[in-house]
Order: sequence, then C-alpha cells, then structure tokens
Amino acid sequence: MLIVMKTDATQEMVDEVCTCIKKMGLKPHAMPGAQRTAIGVTGNKERVDSDMIMSQLGVREIIHVTKPFKLVSREFFPVDSIIDVDGVKIGGKEFVVMAGPCSVESREQCMVIAETIKKHGGKIFRGGAFKPRTSPYAFQGLKEEGLKILAEVRDKFGLKIITEAVDTETIDLVAKYTDMIQIGARNMQNYSLLRKAGRTKKPVLLKRGMSATLDEFLMAAEYIMAEDNKNVVLCERGVRTFADHTRNTLDLSAIPFVKRTSHLPIISDPSHGTGKRDKVIPLSRASIAVGADGLIIEVHHDPSKALSDGPQAITPDMFAELMRQMKTLAPVVDKECE
Amino acid sequence: MLIVMKTDATQEMVDEVCTCIKKMGLKPHAMPGAQRTAIGVTGNKERVDSDMIMSQLGVREIIHVTKPFKLVSREFFPVDSIIDVDGVKIGGKEFVVMAGPCSVESREQCMVIAETIKKHGGKIFRGGAFKPRTSPYAFQGLKEEGLKILAEVRDKFGLKIITEAVDTETIDLVAKYTDMIQIGARNMQNYSLLRKAGRTKKPVLLKRGMSATLDEFLMAAEYIMAEDNKNVVLCERGVRTFADHTRNTLDLSAIPFVKRTSHLPIISDPSHGTGKRDKVIPLSRASIAVGADGLIIEVHHDPSKALSDGPQAITPDMFAELMRQMKTLAPVVDKECE
Amino acid sequence: MLIVMKTDATQEMVDEVCTCIKKMGLKPHAMPGAQRTAIGVTGNKERVDSDMIMSQLGVREIIHVTKPFKLVSREFFPVDSIIDVDGVKIGGKEFVVMAGPCSVESREQCMVIAETIKKHGGKIFRGGAFKPRTSPYAFQGLKEEGLKILAEVRDKFGLKIITEAVDTETIDLVAKYTDMIQIGARNMQNYSLLRKAGRTKKPVLLKRGMSATLDEFLMAAEYIMAEDNKNVVLCERGVRTFADHTRNTLDLSAIPFVKRTSHLPIISDPSHGTGKRDKVIPLSRASIAVGADGLIIEVHHDPSKALSDGPQAITPDMFAELMRQMKTLAPVVDKECE
Amino acid sequence: MLIVMKTDATQEMVDEVCTCIKKMGLKPHAMPGAQRTAIGVTGNKERVDSDMIMSQLGVREIIHVTKPFKLVSREFFPVDSIIDVDGVKIGGKEFVVMAGPCSVESREQCMVIAETIKKHGGKIFRGGAFKPRTSPYAFQGLKEEGLKILAEVRDKFGLKIITEAVDTETIDLVAKYTDMIQIGARNMQNYSLLRKAGRTKKPVLLKRGMSATLDEFLMAAEYIMAEDNKNVVLCERGVRTFADHTRNTLDLSAIPFVKRTSHLPIISDPSHGTGKRDKVIPLSRASIAVGADGLIIEVHHDPSKALSDGPQAITPDMFAELMRQMKTLAPVVDKECE
Repeated sequence: MLIVMKTDATQEMVDEVCTCIKKMGLKPHAMPGAQRTAIGVTGNKERVDSDMIMSQLGVREIIHVTKPFKLVSREFFPVDSIIDVDGVKIGGKEFVVMAGPCSVESREQCMVIAETIKKHGGKIFRGGAFKPRTSPYAFQGLKEEGLKILAEVRDKFGLKIITEAVDTETIDLVAKYTDMIQIGARNMQNYSLLRKAGRTKKPVLLKRGMSATLDEFLMAAEYIMAEDNKNVVLCERGVRTFADHTRNTLDLSAIPFVKRTSHLPIISDPSHGTGKRDKVIPLSRASIAVGADGLIIEVHHDPSKALSDGPQAITPDMFAELMRQMKTLAPVVDKECE
Repeated sequence: MLIVMKTDATQEMVDEVCTCIKKMGLKPHAMPGAQRTAIGVTGNKERVDSDMIMSQLGVREIIHVTKPFKLVSREFFPVDSIIDVDGVKIGGKEFVVMAGPCSVESREQCMVIAETIKKHGGKIFRGGAFKPRTSPYAFQGLKEEGLKILAEVRDKFGLKIITEAVDTETIDLVAKYTDMIQIGARNMQNYSLLRKAGRTKKPVLLKRGMSATLDEFLMAAEYIMAEDNKNVVLCERGVRTFADHTRNTLDLSAIPFVKRTSHLPIISDPSHGTGKRDKVIPLSRASIAVGADGLIIEVHHDPSKALSDGPQAITPDMFAELMRQMKTLAPVVDKECE
Repeated sequence: MLIVMKTDATQEMVDEVCTCIKKMGLKPHAMPGAQRTAIGVTGNKERVDSDMIMSQLGVREIIHVTKPFKLVSREFFPVDSIIDVDGVKIGGKEFVVMAGPCSVESREQCMVIAETIKKHGGKIFRGGAFKPRTSPYAFQGLKEEGLKILAEVRDKFGLKIITEAVDTETIDLVAKYTDMIQIGARNMQNYSLLRKAGRTKKPVLLKRGMSATLDEFLMAAEYIMAEDNKNVVLCERGVRTFADHTRNTLDLSAIPFVKRTSHLPIISDPSHGTGKRDKVIPLSRASIAVGADGLIIEVHHDPSKALSDGPQAITPDMFAELMRQMKTLAPVVDKECE
Repeated sequence: MLIVMKTDATQEMVDEVCTCIKKMGLKPHAMPGAQRTAIGVTGNKERVDSDMIMSQLGVREIIHVTKPFKLVSREFFPVDSIIDVDGVKIGGKEFVVMAGPCSVESREQCMVIAETIKKHGGKIFRGGAFKPRTSPYAFQGLKEEGLKILAEVRDKFGLKIITEAVDTETIDLVAKYTDMIQIGARNMQNYSLLRKAGRTKKPVLLKRGMSATLDEFLMAAEYIMAEDNKNVVLCERGVRTFADHTRNTLDLSAIPFVKRTSHLPIISDPSHGTGKRDKVIPLSRASIAVGADGLIIEVHHDPSKALSDGPQAITPDMFAELMRQMKTLAPVVDKECE
C-alpha cells in the first residue's frame, strides 16, 4: 500500500500517519519527493483497512500496490534510484564499468589488471576472494588474504571494490573490506544471506539466478530492501536454456523490463552471460544499447593461466577496445562514459 | 572439402578440377575470389581421397571442412555474403529495416502502413498472406488476394516485398509475387519446403526455430544453399525458455556467433523476440549494436484491431522513433541507415 | 459449442439440428453415444447465438466449449477414443508396442528385426523410409523401396506398419503402403501436412514438437481432426531443455494431462525421449505406469552399424526384456499386454 | 583416485597406505568391502604420482577416477549405499514414502495429517518449520515451535521426521530435533550450508536445483560427503522448462542416470515436480517404476486452507489411494512397500 500525502502536508502530518501505521502493526517507509511525500506500507498479510488512514490529516490518496514486490516496485517509488558506491553513482547518467579477474589470485595479478582497468576508465574493481565452486576440491579463493589485496587495489588506484559474499558467516568480513557486496546467481534465493546483506547497509549487486523469472529476481531484491537497505543494483547474467553455443543465454529483454517495473538500476554481465571471450564486446554493445546502467566484466592479463573461468576473461587489449566502444556508444543512448 | 586454387590458376584448370570432382560422384561449387578461386565439394559421405585432386594442375591446397555445414560455412567461403533483394543489399554496410503488419488484412490497411514504412526509411514491406496459425479455426490469411495487395504496395511505394511461404503447394505462387520469401520458425526443419525455397532462386529469409541450436539453424540454411541458391538471410527471432516476461527470449548472442561461423547475413526480429510492443525499440537498439544486418518489425496503424499478434505490433509513431534511433546508432557501429 | 440432445431425441431431430447449424454457416459433428447423441459445432469465429438452436426439438442443453481445441477436447467428446489400426486397437485395454529400426536400411535388416518384434509381442512395426535429417548430405531413407520392404514385413509377419510422412508430396505414397502415418516432431506445426494427413483418413501418430506446449500439441491434432479424421494417436517424445544427460527430457506428466484434457490415446517414445539405449527400459516402465497407451521403440539388431540414431536403439535381447517387463506391469495398471 | 587393496591385505597395510596418503597432503577414505578394502583419495589438485603408493604392501591396483565427483561416484564405491534414518532404510529393498504438509501450521494440523500418513504406511513425516519463501512478507514458518510439533509427531506416531534447514544459523537447531535434514532446491549450491549439513552427520535429503545439470547435482552431494557424512539421499523434484502445464518438469530420466553414476539412493518429489494435485498419483507410479527408492509427498487434510502450496497437496483419501498403488507396484519392480 502506498499513501500519497498532499503537497502542503507538514512533516508533523507525515509523522502522525507513520505512527498510525505502526499502531496497526505495519511498517511505514516515508519517501520524501520533490512535490510531495509518499509513505509506503509493508507488513500487511491482507488488504489493509484504509479508512483510518484516509481520515488522517494531509493524506491525499491511497494506492493499493498490485505487485507482490513493494519497495522494489516503480509503482511504490516512481523515480529512478541512483546508488552511490562511495562516490561512483550507478543508475544515473553515468555508464559504470566494473571489471577485474574472476578470482583474486595474487597481489601482482591484481595490480597488473587494476592498472589496465583504471587506465581505460573502469570505475569499480571486481575480484573474487571467496569463490563458490561447483567442486569442493576446486580453488575456493584466497579469502581474507584476497580481501586485503582488494583493499590495496583501492588504495593504490582509487578504484572502488566489489567482491562476492558467499555465506552469512563471512559477509561481515567482506563488508569490512569492500565498497559493494556481490550476491551471486547461485545465492539469489539464499534468503538469510539476502537479509544479512541488507543489514550491512552496503550497496549490494544482486545477480539474477540461472533460472529465475523476473518476478522472483525482484522479490529477491525486496528481501534486501526490506532490511532498510535501499542500495541495491541488479545484474542480468544470463539464464539457462537449451542453447549450447554460449554458457548461458543473456536475456537482454530483462533490462528494459526491470527498468519499467522497478526503480532500481540494472547492469549486464556479458562475461558469464556468454562464457566466450570473443562474444563479450558485441554483447557489451548490446547491453548499453538496450538501456543497462553499466557492465561487470572479467579481465585477465593471462587468461590461459586463470585459476577460474579463463575462457570468458578478456585480455587488457580487449578491455581497452571495449571501453573505447562504450565511450562512443554512451552519448548516443543518453549516457556518459568518461 | 575445400580446394584452394593457385593465384595464377586458369579458368581451364578450375574446370578441369570440377570435372575430376564430378567423376568422383561429388558436386563442385566454384567460388571465384579476388585473389584466387576456391572450389567447395559436397556430396561426400566419407573423407574424400584427395591425392587425385592434389595432382591436378593449379591446385594449391585442400582444406578438410570440419563443420557439418559446408556452403553456409565461413571456412568454405570466408567473405561476407551480400544478398541483393532487387536492389536492396543485405549484409553489407546498409542496415536494412523490413516492416509491416503481421497479416495483410486489406488494401487500405497495407497502404496506410506502407506509407509510414516508406516515409521513415524502411526498405522492405512485410505482411503475411498465408498465415500459419496454431488453431485451424483462426484467420489463415487472404492468400492470393493478399499477395496482390503486396504487389500493389511495391508498385505504389517502391518498397520491396517479403511474405511467408507456408507450404510446397503455394510457394511458387508466393515466389511469383514477392521479392523475398520468408520461411517461418515453425518450418525451419520442413526440409521439403527449404529445398523448394532453394529451387525458386529467390532471396530467402530463414527464421530460427523456437528451440533450434545454431548448428541446426545453419544446417537448415544449408538445405536451401544445397539447391544452388546462395541468397539466404538468417533471422534470430527468439527461442523458447522458462522466462515468462517475454513471449520468447531473444538470443542476441546468436548474431555474433553466426557472423563468425557463417558468411551469411543475419537480422533480428524483436517483435516476435519479445512479443511486447514496448520492448521492440530497446531490443532493436541492442540488435544493431550487437552486429545485426537489419531488422524485421511488425507495425500496425491500429494494433488493438489487428487480426493477429496485435500486442507486439508497434504504432507508426513508434516506428518513426525506432528509425530515428537506428539512424543515430548506425554510424557508431559502422553501418549506414539512411 | 456442444449441443447435447435429449435421451429420447430421434435421428430425425438430430438431422434437423445439423441442418440448422449448416444454415448458420457452421459445421456439425454428430457424436452418437450410449445414452444420447451430442453434436459438436465448429467453424464459429465468435460466440454463436444459441437461441435458434435451443428452440429445436430434442435439444437438451448447449455447452460452450472454453478450450481453443474442440474436436480433440474431452469436453466435446467425453469417452476415451479407441483408434483401430487395421485391427490393433490403441487407447483401450491393450498396451500396444510399436517397434523397429530408425531407418529401413535393407530387406534383410527389416526381416531380422521384425522377427524379434513379432516374437516378443510387438504389434506394429516402425521404420523410416523417408527420413527428415538435420543435414542435407545425410542418408535420407530408401523412399518407395523402403515402403515396399515395410509392406513385405506386414505380409510376412502380420505386423501392422507405421512410417513417417515428411511432406505433402509423398504422403499419399506413404498412405498407400502403410497402416498408420507418423507425423514427426519437426513437422508438428506443418499445417499443410497435418491437413493432408487428415484427408488420408488413415490413423495418424502425431509426435509432440520439441518445444511445444500441450495446448499447441492438441491444436496440431485439431488440424488433423478438422479434416474429419478421428484416428489420431498422440506421442510424447521428449522436449528440449538445458538438461544434458539425455538427448531430450521426456515429459511424462504430459500423458496424464493429455488424457484428462483430451479423449485421444497417447503413447510414449523413450528412444527419442532419452537418446540413450540404457535408459529406454526404465523410462518404458515409467511410461506404462504413468498411463500411456503404448510405446514406440527403436530396435536394431546391430546398433553400432545403424545408419541413423544408433546410440538410442536397443538390441533384440533388450527388447525381449522390455516386453517381459511390460507384460508384468500391464495388469497392475489395468492394461493388457499379451 | 581409488586404491584397491589385495584380498588378503591386512588392516595394518590399509593403515599404512592411509598414512602414506596423508603424508602426501591428501585425504584417504578407507572403504572396507565384502571382498577387499578400497581407499578413496581426495584433495589432489592434479594427477597424483602413484608410484609411491603402488610400492606399498597390499596394494593391488590404482584407479584414476575420471569424474569430477569422487565420494559420490559409483566408480569410487560400486555398491548401492543404504542410508539409515533411525531405522528406516533408504536405498535398499524398501520403497520409502515420506509425506506430510508443506508447512507445519499447528499441532492439530500435524496430528491429523500424521495419523493418515502412519495409517497408510508412510515412514517419514515431512513438514516445513523454516520456509524459504519467494516473498519476504509471506509466512516463513513456525520455526522452533514447528520443530517441537514435529518432535511430538515422532513421539506419538513413531514416524521419523524430515524438515528443511534453510541457513547455517538454524541448521544446528534443526539437526537437534529432526531425523533427516532436507536441503531445498534453492539451496542446492549454497555450499556453506552443504558443508554444515555434512558436519551434522545426520542423514541429508538433497533436492536437485531448478536448473541443475546432474553433474552439478552430484557435485553438490560431494560437498556434503567431503565432510565425512555418507548419509546422503538425492531427490529429483522437477526442473524449469518452457512447459506450462506443470509447475516444473519432473525429469524422471535423472533417476536411472543417478543410480548408474552414483551409489547414492534417489527419491522423487511429484508434488513439487508437477505442482498439480491430480498429477501426483500418476507421477508417483512412474517414479517407482523408473527405479526411485522412495517418494516425498505433500499431504494436507484441507488443501484449500493450506498456508503454502495448497494446489499441489493431496488429500488423505488420495494418499491412501497412492499408498495402495505403491504397494501393488512395488513387488513388480523388485521393491517392498509394506
């Protein structure tokens, strides 16, 4: 339910309505806007009796939200959200490129790759310190040592840092070191992890699950936002289909769909979306053209020696070319990519 | 198998090699190039004994083609094919837009829509005269009357015409009226129809089947080309997946994959690919950006009254906006869209 | 629309109602039942004005059919259809096994295999004379020579014959030799072929398309029945999914769904459904248990030398074991398998 | 790697080999068999130099395991594993039925349903105390209160208890009350939860993820077994496909595939696999026929009032009928269902 206040409603009136909502056992979310304040209401199992609320001073109208997701919904919050990752803004004019290796393998590896990322205009450095691997015997990441290397990258290059949190045990450690927490596709419906990611209040990048419908995807984001964390960025990374020429099928229609249904930013991951190095640049072009707010790209200075996902990592030269193309395309689709 | 002739090989030598191949019970396809002639060989069930061929005058080398498709393959024919639809060239610099209603409903409807298509730079008018419909009781098209209306559109507006052939009984009639024959997704593996489409020698637009792998898609094109018809354009139109926010999942990664594996042009159909009017423009942008050679778009002047597929048809205003965006994007991706 | 006549309605009254329906430009399908006659009506684009019909003598009630398929629907025709393939009855008590090689390769091959089929209780011999192949260069079948071999098998062993018709040009030839015409998965939406199969009046085995929903599957059967051919048997043969351990994913839930929605019999094809020889027997057990009316199985006396689909053909010994298991299971699920 | 000891190798020799393996930084898993002992080795990143091991006393041969999964693999451990859930044995002769409500809703609800389960031969009572729900606002289960109700069911009816653990925070609590821990489809690749489930040493029921290949499914089981917990039972519960007549597509071919590749038992969940009450019985028949070791079924005494998944719960009468059919089928497929 969404309560729209009159243009001339005072802060006092807004507070009064919020108190009234709390008394009903529900949770108010005051959202001040340019023209007027709206108050979202969550926590109701059934349709709320709205008479008591309508009788409050300053209330203009009550909108019953039809979608199962609320805080995530554009019905609830009509203006594009811009998520601030320690100064890097996602969801506005800027087209933000996150890039780096699949796994943090060593200090040297990260420094070499970060230099390339920085030089060509990447803003956020990615690298896995905790790796969710299909096999229990595969390389599982450098863990805290990896996080420390990421922190060094931030200090040295001024890049922001994103890394994946794989469980509730280690997410606080991850939150301590990183600027943005990634929730991977396999964990899209790991609700305890989503809630805990919400509670860190850090910006969260939520990847679409391999067979998630868009409603399920948005509901997963709702879990994070329900913990009073508005800093959610979504990521399309390909879904599982019968098609065998790519690792996953990048579903670019998800991007305009999400932008219409939700106010949250959404970026694209053509590295996992295709699993093929030589498809990353064309699908990056398609991603910016379809309306994505950014990219997350795997880059490795020596992909043949990467400890994970080598076949999809692009080389530094390819990354330079990718950024050149993004800079050319951005103004045409009303974005900026410096 | 591909036989590469020496640079200075004479036409006589080429003929001699072709004769030799025929004697072996195989079929030669001479492909003169800028530098040298290559001769493709089809019809072999097993690996051909190449000694006899190597001993011919003018033969430089023999390449054993590893893909099951041959005439379609870039290994076989390395240069981009440009298909000429009565003066409209697909596969070169020009980004070609085909547009029109799902079904030819009446003379008036077609004239109104064609005027819009022409005005904003569409080059080829599409409209179904024979409609493959899920229900035997649904509108099946105006048939020859529809073809005559399409011919009038060509005469009046100078647009080229594409329409679907649905069976071997009516394809000759279709070929008589149209500039390009469409083979629909449901018929992608209707091999008798593919062969007969090949024999018309008309340009053919072959749509990817709803659950076709790219190998199967290219093999279907091979059926047409095996009838000595080189005028094949491919079309990605979405595949069937679990995703329910679109009618099909437009698999844009197919486009760079096909362009690398084959020399044939490929266009995109965001109308069927999404089934949602408001997703057609963003996915058209993604299509040109990913490297498509053109689009096929459903346009209707009054979509709510369309006899078929109304929800995916865009309005004339949306078509104008779509063309405006294509013209802005084309130069950035090294294409032209006048 | 379905018109239910009163128990004591005379044939004259039924004829009168049919005449009335024809006058309205529609098509009546009289279906005499044990208790009373029902008259199905097709051909209406919109809801029919039923007052005129209700006023006819002998009419008890009018049921508006909600499904897009009509003749196929159990709403329309509530009793299980039993299809008679020259004496072999599919859809009743008997569990019917069709078996044979993927392709008719030679007279000898067919005789050897048919002997096994006959000996262990198979009733219908399958074998492809016209083969739809992904590659234009692959073995396309022995054609009429193959049909003649099949006819010999019938004469010699008393087995009924089923073979695939791949196009409208050759279906009459196929109909001349065979007892039942198979329409393959790739042709499930080849509507011209479906209509022509209907017009042969022969029993038709219609396979589900690789990505067909059940509504599309039943609508395809409706095309055949709309040509006044009631002899349709459906076949679940697996659908295309991401799963890579089998060639297709056999969707056994389709069988009880079809049996509830339609009166037509449905059999299972675990050979194509799995593509793996060693999975054919367990999935055959699952098929009879779930409620299938029969099986169609690929058997080859020397699978490693089969010209097509060798990896899914079972050996004669495995076929003997399969039949032994079917005979044990049949009585438990209220079927007979002699 | 698998080390096969000679028939007459002493326990001392086995211990010596294990010590040798540990010295190499690897982990030995001694598996005494009827004839001889085998020692599985895990922990190697690359192929192990086997000379040192071959030179040990009592070693007969070394088998390099080719599958990425090891402990799970039948190559590693060729005999069917039988998992003992406090006396109920899964994977042997007995066909074990687990049944109960989706969610534990109240003491009364559980007692009513448990009485039915017990009466008709169910052995393990299922019921969710912690519920993973798509929406953060949906009923999330009674939590510990629910676990206590489950414990009461065990005491009163002598049924064993299975319930889902949804996160690492609550799994120890779950382990305290339950006889078998369920890991749900959404958590199939929640590796921290898998490891912790392994460490409880309790029997674990691992459900296949919605879009998991069978290799990924078995690798997930490997995570549990790698924590020295051999008590793993797998569960096929349907995968996500384009098919819209069922909630998921129950992939019954997974069952014979798993039984051939792994020694672990596997059961079927036709409730989630179809999502439709009236398809549960036929798909249960198919499951036992294809070779499943048991079923897990949702039963509710008043499905229309169920707090979750009502449309797939069967009634007590349907459960009685289901058990009757299982008892009839079991002996035919060499199982027992008392």
